[in-house]
Amino acid sequence: MPESDFDKLKVAALAGGVGGARLADGLARLLLPENLTVIVNTGDDFIHLGLNISPDLDTVCYTLSGLANPATGWGRSGETFSALESIGELGGPTWFRLGDRDLGLHLERTRRLRQGQTLSQVTRDFCRQWGVRPAVVPMSDDSVPTWVYTDEGELPFQEYFVHRMCRPRVSGFRFAEVEHAAPAPGVLSALQSAHLVVICPSNPWVSVDPILAVPGIRSSLQIASHSGKSPVIAVSPIIAGQTVKGPAAKMFAELGIEPSALAVARHYGSLLSGFVLDQTDASQADAIESLGMRTLVTDTLMRTPDDRRRLAGEVLAFGAQAF
Amino acid sequence: MPESDFDKLKVAALAGGVGGARLADGLARLLLPENLTVIVNTGDDFIHLGLNISPDLDTVCYTLSGLANPATGWGRSGETFSALESIGELGGPTWFRLGDRDLGLHLERTRRLRQGQTLSQVTRDFCRQWGVRPAVVPMSDDSVPTWVYTDEGELPFQEYFVHRMCRPRVSGFRFAEVEHAAPAPGVLSALQSAHLVVICPSNPWVSVDPILAVPGIRSSLQIASHSGKSPVIAVSPIIAGQTVKGPAAKMFAELGIEPSALAVARHYGSLLSGFVLDQTDASQADAIESLGMRTLVTDTLMRTPDDRRRLAGEVLAFGAQAF
Repeated sequence: MPESDFDKLKVAALAGGVGGARLADGLARLLLPENLTVIVNTGDDFIHLGLNISPDLDTVCYTLSGLANPATGWGRSGETFSALESIGELGGPTWFRLGDRDLGLHLERTRRLRQGQTLSQVTRDFCRQWGVRPAVVPMSDDSVPTWVYTDEGELPFQEYFVHRMCRPRVSGFRFAEVEHAAPAPGVLSALQSAHLVVICPSNPWVSVDPILAVPGIRSSLQIASHSGKSPVIAVSPIIAGQTVKGPAAKMFAELGIEPSALAVARHYGSLLSGFVLDQTDASQADAIESLGMRTLVTDTLMRTPDDRRRLAGEVLAFGAQAF
Repeated sequence: MPESDFDKLKVAALAGGVGGARLADGLARLLLPENLTVIVNTGDDFIHLGLNISPDLDTVCYTLSGLANPATGWGRSGETFSALESIGELGGPTWFRLGDRDLGLHLERTRRLRQGQTLSQVTRDFCRQWGVRPAVVPMSDDSVPTWVYTDEGELPFQEYFVHRMCRPRVSGFRFAEVEHAAPAPGVLSALQSAHLVVICPSNPWVSVDPILAVPGIRSSLQIASHSGKSPVIAVSPIIAGQTVKGPAAKMFAELGIEPSALAVARHYGSLLSGFVLDQTDASQADAIESLGMRTLVTDTLMRTPDDRRRLAGEVLAFGAQAF
């Protein structure tokens, strides 16, 4: 499929942190900005030092704006940590690594939220300031904090993820108050008008499931997929039984499921029209197809911006086939 | 008076920002730390970007800890402004110049205050971390925000002072809720046990008056001064009709009072046992003595740490005379 044909494609992408942000960036390099909506997990949002912090949303925005730190996967490049050092000198909490420029973002977001702006309004305005042209939309303007059930009790997500460095064994997840949350403005319309929905290579348990749990989103995907109107394609975040970054493989294992591309495909199940897996896992393609979805086997590792663009192009071409 | 005699002196000092901080630093270089209490104006405290900011308290602490920026008179030396630049990029407010390390302090203070600690507890703990050994005490743990009546309406202090750069003409001041405020723990006992009370060269209207307005403080000074138990000595913040820093002279003029050392002495009036004025203003000494207080004429400008120490020594020797 020639790249010029992508100009007609409208795509909605579901994304969490690093992997999701990278594929979203690849999509942004190929699609017209008005034809791409990235719907981002906010289950990992939390309040820390009185600041409203949205780690996945920021990773997506920093990546799309070119501000991201490619080495860490979080935060900004060329960042300094003077404020955090000062907090440390005073005996305050430093486990969540807030850079100075990043802190400016959290301060300004918190100020605007307290003024009554919604998270999606604030995000839209920040993206405009940064020159990010595709729509980046939080899954919800309501707070839906993820809790992790572990062998050390129920932990708020960032406590588990950053403070405890994913060490406790997980036994389940809870998306608090999700039944009362509404999709942010633009989420359902983007899903309904998309020619293709892409579930990015993000953690199924704590990046994508929170998005799918917001009332209206999962059913929109089911309708899109089952009606044949717009295929739903997931890209495996697991390659050769491991994740590039983050605890997805560890979570599958602790939940008693062998981590694999197949396990991810089973996780989403009938929601999917197609599944993209890494060439290392090619032997799983038949088993995945037997779940009732088509497969694309390719190199899914995104090391460079060119990798993002290439993978995005392959996903779009795969998804744009008649299903 | 030999400096060793200062070891017996217990002193309470009232201070606002830069000038007050510098004399307090001079006193700290001469007195035993357990014998000095610096009572600091918090009328200029405000909430900005959701942070509890105490500019005068911080100037005193930064000066006593050696962290202060000697060039600006506010903030810390070697400071960076990355967070503020980031806020500016996003269209947020940048008129209050918050450095990155300074921001760390405000974040940690705000966190502790929200946990239920008092401002004086937080300040004591920060001073311990910074190695500041004299007691630095806010005038009150209650919020007593200064409002400035101006020809452009009533303005919150920092709005007048920083945002509007003292440009509006003042016609008066209000210390909101001061009648319900209590002196912070340690304030009254420090005043009562002091051999000498020093009113530092701070703005009489907006640095010292807020302290004096806290119920119990002015009367403690009156008792100290009138009983002859412990003299109260003020150092003029006005030299040759001008201030070294800040709007005190401009305020006197706008209120219809010619700014001068004499005007400052009249402002405090019968509260004072003695008054220290600059040699440039020596001709005003007689008029000041006729107000019923003794005078010390000396070089009151503090350019260097040595100046602070010298002036402090002269003030202590003057105050330690039998009045």
